[in-house]
Amino acid sequence: MTVVTLLTDFGLADTYVGQVKGAILAVASSATLVDLTHAVPPQDIRAGAFLLWSAVEPFPAGTVHLAVVDPGVGSARRAVAIRAARGDVFVGPDNGLLGPAVERLGGCAAAVALTEPAYWRSGNLPSATFHGRDVFGPVAGHLAAGVLLEELGYAVDDLQHVSLPVPDGLSGEVLHVDTYGNLVTNLRSDSLPAGFRVRVGQCSVEPAAHYAAVPPGALLALAGSTGLLEIAARDASAAAITGATRATPVVVEPD
Amino acid sequence: MTVVTLLTDFGLADTYVGQVKGAILAVASSATLVDLTHAVPPQDIRAGAFLLWSAVEPFPAGTVHLAVVDPGVGSARRAVAIRAARGDVFVGPDNGLLGPAVERLGGCAAAVALTEPAYWRSGNLPSATFHGRDVFGPVAGHLAAGVLLEELGYAVDDLQHVSLPVPDGLSGEVLHVDTYGNLVTNLRSDSLPAGFRVRVGQCSVEPAAHYAAVPPGALLALAGSTGLLEIAARDASAAAITGATRATPVVVEPD
Amino acid sequence: MTVVTLLTDFGLADTYVGQVKGAILAVASSATLVDLTHAVPPQDIRAGAFLLWSAVEPFPAGTVHLAVVDPGVGSARRAVAIRAARGDVFVGPDNGLLGPAVERLGGCAAAVALTEPAYWRSGNLPSATFHGRDVFGPVAGHLAAGVLLEELGYAVDDLQHVSLPVPDGLSGEVLHVDTYGNLVTNLRSDSLPAGFRVRVGQCSVEPAAHYAAVPPGALLALAGSTGLLEIAARDASAAAITGATRATPVVVEPD
Repeated sequence: MTVVTLLTDFGLADTYVGQVKGAILAVASSATLVDLTHAVPPQDIRAGAFLLWSAVEPFPAGTVHLAVVDPGVGSARRAVAIRAARGDVFVGPDNGLLGPAVERLGGCAAAVALTEPAYWRSGNLPSATFHGRDVFGPVAGHLAAGVLLEELGYAVDDLQHVSLPVPDGLSGEVLHVDTYGNLVTNLRSDSLPAGFRVRVGQCSVEPAAHYAAVPPGALLALAGSTGLLEIAARDASAAAITGATRATPVVVEPD
Repeated sequence: MTVVTLLTDFGLADTYVGQVKGAILAVASSATLVDLTHAVPPQDIRAGAFLLWSAVEPFPAGTVHLAVVDPGVGSARRAVAIRAARGDVFVGPDNGLLGPAVERLGGCAAAVALTEPAYWRSGNLPSATFHGRDVFGPVAGHLAAGVLLEELGYAVDDLQHVSLPVPDGLSGEVLHVDTYGNLVTNLRSDSLPAGFRVRVGQCSVEPAAHYAAVPPGALLALAGSTGLLEIAARDASAAAITGATRATPVVVEPD
Repeated sequence: MTVVTLLTDFGLADTYVGQVKGAILAVASSATLVDLTHAVPPQDIRAGAFLLWSAVEPFPAGTVHLAVVDPGVGSARRAVAIRAARGDVFVGPDNGLLGPAVERLGGCAAAVALTEPAYWRSGNLPSATFHGRDVFGPVAGHLAAGVLLEELGYAVDDLQHVSLPVPDGLSGEVLHVDTYGNLVTNLRSDSLPAGFRVRVGQCSVEPAAHYAAVPPGALLALAGSTGLLEIAARDASAAAITGATRATPVVVEPD
């Protein structure tokens, strides 16, 4: 009953996600499959890394997380599996996508390059375009079925690294605009001064405890669900009101 | 193997739905999770109440239904769990979202306010913005794992109520426009006269037994899959042809 | 733990897919449900047939595949179940939707018309509009629970047929434009000459082994993941660059 999560930029209009799930279930018929999201902007490794980071914490320790945003598929870029300190294992391309989520679960405990074809899709050479189905899915299935990380290939200690932008003191930026138009910033909400305002674009926003504490349409700054400061608007889109997008500067000004 | 369904306004572009599922599986690793829809218009409690009502009947009795359309999250609005007469349990905010679906499954047999933190996400205070992950998901998981409704908090008998619009005799309205442009009305198809026409906008529509009984592009009135009168168009959108939207009047005229 | 896949044109905004899953789980509570896609263009049987064909191969043999693109629902069109040589069973309308996928798994080993109401949704006559919930879902559930194909109705040998377009030598066409704008053609990549170029619209495209082998924005022709020749563009949409859509001619020109 191991949980296997999936995060990709495949969208839901094609059958690519379904094919990956077929390849997992062909190996591990009792795995529990959970979609994180398949709407990562195409080839956007950094957006995928943020979304994966945002999602993994609530899952049971020992979950297998398969993530594919993979502009280098078919080239010499490595495929990897990484065990985090909490016990979860991440499977995907070695392009930085997995790193922030691994860090969130305690950092890297072990990592291997996926070089052992016995754990790939049986009877087929991997295609040049779809390692999600041909390599990552079967490997995730084998991990869910109890295969040890160390059997999948040789140990590596030089993983590719993509870092999410780090704030400079109280000057940060928008990491992500969610489906409601909430602005998720890179400022930790537990690191803010007692009294403050937030400047984003032309707007100055005051903190509030929750959405219903401000009038409809008004902006508010609040502690978001992942521990980051968020700018929201009650029953409205903070992105539309402020004009902010990903990477827009956000500055906290103490009272 | 208890089934847990999920209906929210979270969309699928973020990882919010995935996080709720992680919180459920952290408590009930063998639950079977089924999405009803996550495309409820943001904060639209009435649309969510209709969609939940439309969906629950085919599931096995005893299913746990988690629903979150929750503009009051973080405020004093209550969180509740409601057992319907059929045995299904509904979990969500006390804002009227759950009521029509509870009625469809025989009405409320018992209801509690979710006040017992032992059944919330362990080791964390609930965030101000994401009770789907921090309260409703874990509670749904505990219910799926066999915890009794009565252990989750104190009994309540004053649930908030949102009613779907009721027709006045043969004068009703459009409850929902579905993805094909079919107009789902609030007129029960088993309450109509033997011969009739339906007036919606500038159009007068005749009954037909099924789509293929009329020419391509033509409107028809038929008994929909939830027992309500629907206005459809063969291989076309009745909404586009009639200009009707939610709340547009629909009048049945006996022959 | 039988896998049941679902492919429909229902979209994800309504609860139709959820209702089908409820009807399956009411019969087979331990089935593993997997979405292939629900974004088939409404009523487009040929697009659905391609997408189903594209998806089934990676699943374990013996999977049950439920597919519904069904403009004739409620009319006299038959409902069928078809066992492919690999052991998978397909359930859906008899309108050609299932045929190419059945062929991919070895061809038809047995087929029946679904005429035995004991395996439909219990206690309800099928609606005129939603056989996915009322007939196909319960039948798929019974198959997953071990009911034999032959119990579901009488044998048929005159299935409706829809064929995907077949190339004329090296002259083919675009079968499908995927979510990235890749052009999936009907030319088998293992049937091409050693050296060649591909003409599509005003563009002449050279082969490459994988995306990263060409500069950003450049077109390339490569072996796609289902064994068909694909025209892609690195980090860009080949559909946007070439102006090609479904049925656009694609010609392979040997060097």
